[in-house]
Amino acid sequence: MSEFLELLAPPQALSLFLDRLPERSLTEWIMSCEALGCVTAEPIRATFPLPTFARSTVDGFAVRAPDTHGASESLPAYLRIVGEVPMGDTADFSLGVGDCAVIHTGGMIPLGATAVVMVEYTQEAHKEEVEILRAVSDGENVLQVGEDVQTGDVVIPAGIRLRSAEIGGLMAQGVTQVAVSRRPKVGIISSGDEVVEPGNLLRDGQVYDVNSYSLRALVIDSGGEPINYGILPDNADSFRQAAQKAKAECDIVVFTAGSSVSVRDLTAQTIDELGEPGVLVHGIRVRPGKPTILAVCDETAVIGLPGNPVSALVIARIFVVATIEKMLGLTQPRPKAVVAARLSLNLSSQTGREDWIGVKLVQVPNDDLYRAEPIFGKSNLIFTLAQADGLLRIPPAATGLPAGSLVTIELL
Amino acid sequence: MSEFLELLAPPQALSLFLDRLPERSLTEWIMSCEALGCVTAEPIRATFPLPTFARSTVDGFAVRAPDTHGASESLPAYLRIVGEVPMGDTADFSLGVGDCAVIHTGGMIPLGATAVVMVEYTQEAHKEEVEILRAVSDGENVLQVGEDVQTGDVVIPAGIRLRSAEIGGLMAQGVTQVAVSRRPKVGIISSGDEVVEPGNLLRDGQVYDVNSYSLRALVIDSGGEPINYGILPDNADSFRQAAQKAKAECDIVVFTAGSSVSVRDLTAQTIDELGEPGVLVHGIRVRPGKPTILAVCDETAVIGLPGNPVSALVIARIFVVATIEKMLGLTQPRPKAVVAARLSLNLSSQTGREDWIGVKLVQVPNDDLYRAEPIFGKSNLIFTLAQADGLLRIPPAATGLPAGSLVTIELL
Repeated sequence: MSEFLELLAPPQALSLFLDRLPERSLTEWIMSCEALGCVTAEPIRATFPLPTFARSTVDGFAVRAPDTHGASESLPAYLRIVGEVPMGDTADFSLGVGDCAVIHTGGMIPLGATAVVMVEYTQEAHKEEVEILRAVSDGENVLQVGEDVQTGDVVIPAGIRLRSAEIGGLMAQGVTQVAVSRRPKVGIISSGDEVVEPGNLLRDGQVYDVNSYSLRALVIDSGGEPINYGILPDNADSFRQAAQKAKAECDIVVFTAGSSVSVRDLTAQTIDELGEPGVLVHGIRVRPGKPTILAVCDETAVIGLPGNPVSALVIARIFVVATIEKMLGLTQPRPKAVVAARLSLNLSSQTGREDWIGVKLVQVPNDDLYRAEPIFGKSNLIFTLAQADGLLRIPPAATGLPAGSLVTIELL
Repeated sequence: MSEFLELLAPPQALSLFLDRLPERSLTEWIMSCEALGCVTAEPIRATFPLPTFARSTVDGFAVRAPDTHGASESLPAYLRIVGEVPMGDTADFSLGVGDCAVIHTGGMIPLGATAVVMVEYTQEAHKEEVEILRAVSDGENVLQVGEDVQTGDVVIPAGIRLRSAEIGGLMAQGVTQVAVSRRPKVGIISSGDEVVEPGNLLRDGQVYDVNSYSLRALVIDSGGEPINYGILPDNADSFRQAAQKAKAECDIVVFTAGSSVSVRDLTAQTIDELGEPGVLVHGIRVRPGKPTILAVCDETAVIGLPGNPVSALVIARIFVVATIEKMLGLTQPRPKAVVAARLSLNLSSQTGREDWIGVKLVQVPNDDLYRAEPIFGKSNLIFTLAQADGLLRIPPAATGLPAGSLVTIELL
C-alpha cells in the first residue's frame, strides 16, 4: 500500500487539476435547431409572456361567466351563438350579455368572454342558440396571459446542456439563435513504436491504434471537438514537436502513450516541459489508470493517459470528460445515468484505491434489480469494455464488495 | 373510467403496433470512426487472434523459465543479456540456455523465451549480465496468442449501438468500415392554423411551432434522420397531400396536429386513408397523450401525436423512439438510463391509466437518493419538461404514489 500513500484518489486529483484551469468564455451563436447537446452560454429570458394571449384550454363555448350562473342539466341557460373564434386570429366580434361563441382548444378568448364551458356540458338547441348545462366561474378553462411564463423570466439557465425539451422551449419563445459555448478542441496524441494505423498491414510485434479512435468518440460524445495528431514514434523530439503543435491549436491535449516505464517517463517529461505550471498530478490511486498525468501548461489542460485501451477509456471518462465539461461551462449538469444492480460475486479491492470494473447488466426473473456481472479480461482488452453495459466503482475506503451487494452502475 | 375501458395501455399498444411493422434490412457501410451511435447490421467477427503474437505484460527480461528455477534474492540466477526486444518488431535473436533479453510491456516474446521476469525482481550485474532474484514458471507475465480473442469469435454482435468502447474494438481488429443500419427517415408534419414558424412575427392568437423542433431533436438523438414537412393549415387537402408525400419519402411519418377534436378527427381520417391496414390504435390509456394514433400504411409507420408540446414529446419518447429502434434493428438495447429517487409529495392517478410526470431531481444532504419533485404547469407548457431532469411513470395498476415512495426516474 505504501506506493499509494503519496498519491491522490481521483476526486481529489480532479478538483486539484480543475481548480488550476483558467475560466474561459468562448461563446458562439448558432441556430437553435442545431443546438442539441450544446451548453448555453447565457440565460435565456422570456421576451414575451406565455401564453401571449388568453387561451381556451378546452373545446367548447366562450361565455361571460355570470350568464351561466345557476345553469344545470334540469335548468339550462340559453345563450346566443354570435360566431366562432378562428384559430390563429382574433375574433371579429365581442360578447354582450347572453352571448357566447364557439371556441377550440388553444383559441383566443374573445372580447367580453370571461370563461369557457366545455362542449361536453352544452347542447346545441338550434343553429344560433346553445343550452349551457353547467355553470362556470370567471377564468374557468382559460389560461391567462403570462400564467406560464412572464416577460423577463429565465426560461433556460446558462450552463445547461440543451435536450429536445429545451430546443422546443427556445422555439416557444421564437429564439432561433442561441449563445452556446464553443466546443473545446481536444488534441489526441497517440504514440508507440508498435502502434499502427488501422487498415494498414499488421506485422509481427505490431498492434492497431485503438485509443485515438475510442477517445475521439468519447470526446465527440462529451461535446468536444477532437483533433488527431497521429501516432508518434517513442522519442523525445517527436513527442515535443507534436505536444507543442497540439498545445498551440487546442484547449485540451491528451497523450496516450505506451505502457512501458521508459515511455511513461518520456511522456511525463515532455508534458512537464511544455509550459507552466506543468505536471500537477503524476500517479493516481485508481485501478486501472495509476500512471495518469494531469498538467496545466500555459493555460492548456494536458492529460497523460495510460496506453492500455481500457485504462485509457476509463480514465478519460473521469478526467477528459470533466475537463471538457468545465470548459463548456456546464455548471448545471443533469444527474448521471446510473442503474441499480445486485453484484453477482465477491470483489476484492485494495483499501485506499478507487477501482473501476466493467460489468454486464443482466435482467433477472422476478427481480426489479439487474444482476451486475463483472467482466474480467486477462489483458484488459478493449473488448472487456465493449461487452460491458457500465462501470462499477469501488470507492477507496472499501476493501471490496461481497456478492449480493446493492451497487450503482454508471452506464458507459 | 369508462372512457378508457376499450383502450390499451402504452406497452400493449406499442407491441400491437410494432408487430404489424415489416422487418427491414437497410444496411450501409460507413467508416468505423464515424459510426458512433450507429447500430451494427451484422456481427463483427475477429479475423485474427488477439493478442496476435505472444506479448509481455510487464517491463523486464524475457527468459527461458527453467533457467530461473531456484533463483532467489540470496541466490540469484545469472543470465546473459543477448539483446533488447524492439517494440513493434520481432527480435533478430533467439534465446539459448542461460540467455535473456530486455523486453518492454507489450513487446513480442522472442524465440526461445517462455516467460518474463519483472524488472523489479532483477538487478543488472553489469552491461551484459543480469541477476534474476525470483523464479518464474513457463508462461508467467506472457499473454499467449488468442488468449483474449480467437479468430472467428463474435467480438461485437449485430443489433447493438456502437459506443466509444466498440469503436475502439473495431479498430483493434483493423475494421475500418462497418455495416450499420441506415438511419430511418422520419417525416415530421406539423399543423395548426394558429401555428407560426419561429422567427416570424407573432400576431394575436398565434403561437410558435415547438413540436417540429423538439421532435427533430428527439429523432436525431434516437438515430433517425428527420425531414420537416412544414406547418400545414387545418384542412383535409393539405393534410392528405403532405401525408402522401411524406409517406413516399420516409420510413416513419409523424403528425403533430392541434388539440381540438375536429383537428384530431381530421388527422385520424387522413392517416386511415393513407394505406393499408391504416389506423391500428386510436386513443391510449396514458396521460398525457390519450388521443395518440398508431397506424401502419402500406408498410410505413404513421404516428399521430397530440398537439400539446409536452404530450407530443412524452408520447414520442415512447412510440417514435421505439419505432426508430425497431427499424434500426436495435435488438440488443443497453439498459435505460434511470435514477432512483424518493418522491417529494403524494401523487394521485387514475387506475388503469399510465401517467408520465416531469420531475426535477434534487440532491439531499446525507441521503444517497435524490428527491424527485414533480413539476406541474397549468398548461403543460414545454418549459415544464425543460425544467425536468426526467420522467416518472405511474403504472396503470397504481392509484397513485404516496410521498416518500422509492421511484425510478427515466432521464430525459
